[in-house]
Amino acid sequence: MTLPARYYTDPEIFRKELERFYFNRWICAGRSSAIPNPGDYFLCELANESVIVTRDNAGDIRAFYNVCRHRGSRMCEEQEGSLPGKRITCPYHAWSYGLDGALIGAPHAERPGFSRADYPLKPVRAEHWEGNVFLHFGTPTETVAELLARVATKFANWRMSDLKMHRRIVYDVKANWKLIVLNYNECLHCPFVHPELNPLTDYLGADNEEPNSTYIGGVMFLRNGAETMSFGGSRSGRAFLPGLTEEQRTWAGFYAIYPNLLLAPHPDYLLTHTLWPKAADRTEIVCELHFPPEEMAKPKFYADDAGNFWDLINRQDWHIAELSQAGISSRAYVPGPYTKREELLRAFDQDVLAIDGE
Amino acid sequence: MTLPARYYTDPEIFRKELERFYFNRWICAGRSSAIPNPGDYFLCELANESVIVTRDNAGDIRAFYNVCRHRGSRMCEEQEGSLPGKRITCPYHAWSYGLDGALIGAPHAERPGFSRADYPLKPVRAEHWEGNVFLHFGTPTETVAELLARVATKFANWRMSDLKMHRRIVYDVKANWKLIVLNYNECLHCPFVHPELNPLTDYLGADNEEPNSTYIGGVMFLRNGAETMSFGGSRSGRAFLPGLTEEQRTWAGFYAIYPNLLLAPHPDYLLTHTLWPKAADRTEIVCELHFPPEEMAKPKFYADDAGNFWDLINRQDWHIAELSQAGISSRAYVPGPYTKREELLRAFDQDVLAIDGE
Amino acid sequence: MTLPARYYTDPEIFRKELERFYFNRWICAGRSSAIPNPGDYFLCELANESVIVTRDNAGDIRAFYNVCRHRGSRMCEEQEGSLPGKRITCPYHAWSYGLDGALIGAPHAERPGFSRADYPLKPVRAEHWEGNVFLHFGTPTETVAELLARVATKFANWRMSDLKMHRRIVYDVKANWKLIVLNYNECLHCPFVHPELNPLTDYLGADNEEPNSTYIGGVMFLRNGAETMSFGGSRSGRAFLPGLTEEQRTWAGFYAIYPNLLLAPHPDYLLTHTLWPKAADRTEIVCELHFPPEEMAKPKFYADDAGNFWDLINRQDWHIAELSQAGISSRAYVPGPYTKREELLRAFDQDVLAIDGE
Repeated sequence: MTLPARYYTDPEIFRKELERFYFNRWICAGRSSAIPNPGDYFLCELANESVIVTRDNAGDIRAFYNVCRHRGSRMCEEQEGSLPGKRITCPYHAWSYGLDGALIGAPHAERPGFSRADYPLKPVRAEHWEGNVFLHFGTPTETVAELLARVATKFANWRMSDLKMHRRIVYDVKANWKLIVLNYNECLHCPFVHPELNPLTDYLGADNEEPNSTYIGGVMFLRNGAETMSFGGSRSGRAFLPGLTEEQRTWAGFYAIYPNLLLAPHPDYLLTHTLWPKAADRTEIVCELHFPPEEMAKPKFYADDAGNFWDLINRQDWHIAELSQAGISSRAYVPGPYTKREELLRAFDQDVLAIDGE
Repeated sequence: MTLPARYYTDPEIFRKELERFYFNRWICAGRSSAIPNPGDYFLCELANESVIVTRDNAGDIRAFYNVCRHRGSRMCEEQEGSLPGKRITCPYHAWSYGLDGALIGAPHAERPGFSRADYPLKPVRAEHWEGNVFLHFGTPTETVAELLARVATKFANWRMSDLKMHRRIVYDVKANWKLIVLNYNECLHCPFVHPELNPLTDYLGADNEEPNSTYIGGVMFLRNGAETMSFGGSRSGRAFLPGLTEEQRTWAGFYAIYPNLLLAPHPDYLLTHTLWPKAADRTEIVCELHFPPEEMAKPKFYADDAGNFWDLINRQDWHIAELSQAGISSRAYVPGPYTKREELLRAFDQDVLAIDGE
Repeated sequence: MTLPARYYTDPEIFRKELERFYFNRWICAGRSSAIPNPGDYFLCELANESVIVTRDNAGDIRAFYNVCRHRGSRMCEEQEGSLPGKRITCPYHAWSYGLDGALIGAPHAERPGFSRADYPLKPVRAEHWEGNVFLHFGTPTETVAELLARVATKFANWRMSDLKMHRRIVYDVKANWKLIVLNYNECLHCPFVHPELNPLTDYLGADNEEPNSTYIGGVMFLRNGAETMSFGGSRSGRAFLPGLTEEQRTWAGFYAIYPNLLLAPHPDYLLTHTLWPKAADRTEIVCELHFPPEEMAKPKFYADDAGNFWDLINRQDWHIAELSQAGISSRAYVPGPYTKREELLRAFDQDVLAIDGE
């Protein structure tokens, strides 16, 4: 049976889930290719937090709370960019910090008794995995590499680290973040919700992995001669990803990596969604399509057939998720029966209950 | 004395009133003429609830929560329409229900142990009274016909069931719903708030019924040669309603039927307001004018003199109600003295206190 | 060290501060020159309250809650104006009150047992000080004149009562009101935040008064030949204020008079800001520039160099205050160290803790 309504509507449960699912697990912050050089940065914003994700001089990814140790001001404002002089400088009184977070300068503060070593930026743990940057606001017991070893192996041929973002679309959806995950993990709705997607793939033909506590997912086979997921199923001249086997060119993966990364390797691109819960009934969703840079460099490179396709499919999903959110908020709602085709959803619900301590 | 401020500002009292006044009484949902044929429907939305009001094959009015029994999705989205195939079908996974609420189809759910009979739509009690559809979210102890028998008798000649809606205007008013009821039940403010209405009727000339626990109201006599309430008091060529006596052509009724129907029979039309509380300090108000269909069918039918008149009078009232709401929210507000001309208001306040259990 | 985050983010602390700092102290409501004649009025709005500030027939300033004693309606709607017939008349049922707040007329209410003397408007204490109107919602233990005697003496030559408003700019700032006060009382940020202001004055050259429980402040000396604070430091043909000594023409004062008046006498104008807290993280700020009427009467009078200058400086300050608000809301924020140049801020924080009972 589906979960009781309060898991989708109660602000207190939402607050707890945010702490347990998001602030106490690895979350996906974005792509490492966005910050190729030392001093490049992007901001990752979760709930009230803003984190500066940057690359240090050794090439390692570092992350710090965007909070000056002097009077608490936010320092970086632009969503992404390059830090002038490879320093993080507060715009208020010009305290400045190195790429390792150390306080370097504090004008007029340095008198006897003041030690710069007492005021480094507060760090957030960061890890690079297959081209993605993961952050952990708490203390992880395992690395991302350990948690996602099987996924890395399965999709090694996709060489996800080599891919670059071609297009980003951001959505503001009036639904609980878990309804997005539930919707992602069954295609039983595809014939009714996605008339453009349904001909390309057999909605009953998913090959799902045994669910585990880190992710749920599986693959869906293409059909009717479709070469990829796009309008009409055409690759529009794009090559398959270079490392794929013949068999790997015949399906797409759909993995919900808890809590916020939806990872979908396709024959000629990588599709990602990251979820950013805003309230019990509101989620920001960032959808990105990633291609090989050599493909994007071709003069005739064209990918709107895939980008616009997913924009359409996304909107269909968000709309039905919003209808679910509205209906579940009713006093008439009671948990309903999952079918056999919704087994991944049941697994996710069990994890939610476990994480929520229930 | 008027009620303490908390009855107009406290979210908790608002929540209780919503339960006791709205979810535990008959409320007026709209006009039955909006759904003449089986499968026609309109949505009634109260607080978080959405109810599908439809007509079944026997011609009876039926109402169901707009919540699918599978995963809780809302099913109907358009405010009104006709159900395809006389079925309510969920857009998510195509569970479908008959006009009696029974589950008819549930693709991929029907395996051993699953019984469609376990998953009918949840009903809301519905009753037709004088052309209006009433809903009861709880268990009524009396029928609408019983509760409003005297009103039906008094206005039998208006043949309200025969009238059809000509115009609907929707307002979003920043005032507690009870301030709208209070404002409706005294005309002492008419000389100051309604310079266009005041010449048409004697603001001291109301003939009020003895208040009871179902409604308060009375009639106001036209004056200065006015034939109806409209700009200038003219009927602009419209006939009197066919069944009225000479005497019934000389006044208009103003009945506040608790909690949300303001019913005003006029010599040549019926005016209704329904109230939809949104928050302690916010109410949506739907105003409609209803005429005989044979009158509306005349080539020269014109009713803007009445429609625009009430739009003006409405806005004057909502504005003063918003000023009341703002003032009552002040720490300086203390209950003030009702005059003898505000006796219906006192009766309503007593009912509020009784319903609120105080 | 700076204050803990909760003083800037907790709605409950905000509510208490509003009561203790704003509703239990003299606050500045505006300029008395806005209401030169009996019956002139302006509205002062603080939190949910609306106060009518007017001048009575004796020329004294009077203030009343904008709440009718009959049904609690607000009476005056326009932000400023002149009361028709020198009466405050409720638009609902025409109860009317004199400039002393006494109920004069109450149509249809006056029957045996009703005494007009029982229903005067509720007064708010008002005091005139140096051209400014102060209100006290509670019971003051000292007059404004007593509390601000030293400020009045220091700036007597400015003849602030004679000045008239030339320009008003209203801002909606997403920051706690105290961050505005903190920002106002140090110029250590000037080299980084205010490139246009910094050349005009020595950011280390403030001459601060010993802080006290009523205000903090001091003066800043002009430099580089600047004659006033404006674009380029020019007076653009404006005379110095008539009463100033040579020495008084060389600096500007910056006084934060608790809780809501920022008073800044300049060589050729008076600059005021009043703060109107809306939420823990939101403040409305009214900025005004005041000049001698004889100066404003000159055909070539021009003051945009000063007005636009302060609009720019203001926006720079509000922006940095918003960045502070955002950063302080982070779980990573901890109180940081004040420098010696931020001594006034420490004094203000101590007053906040004292007022808040901590």
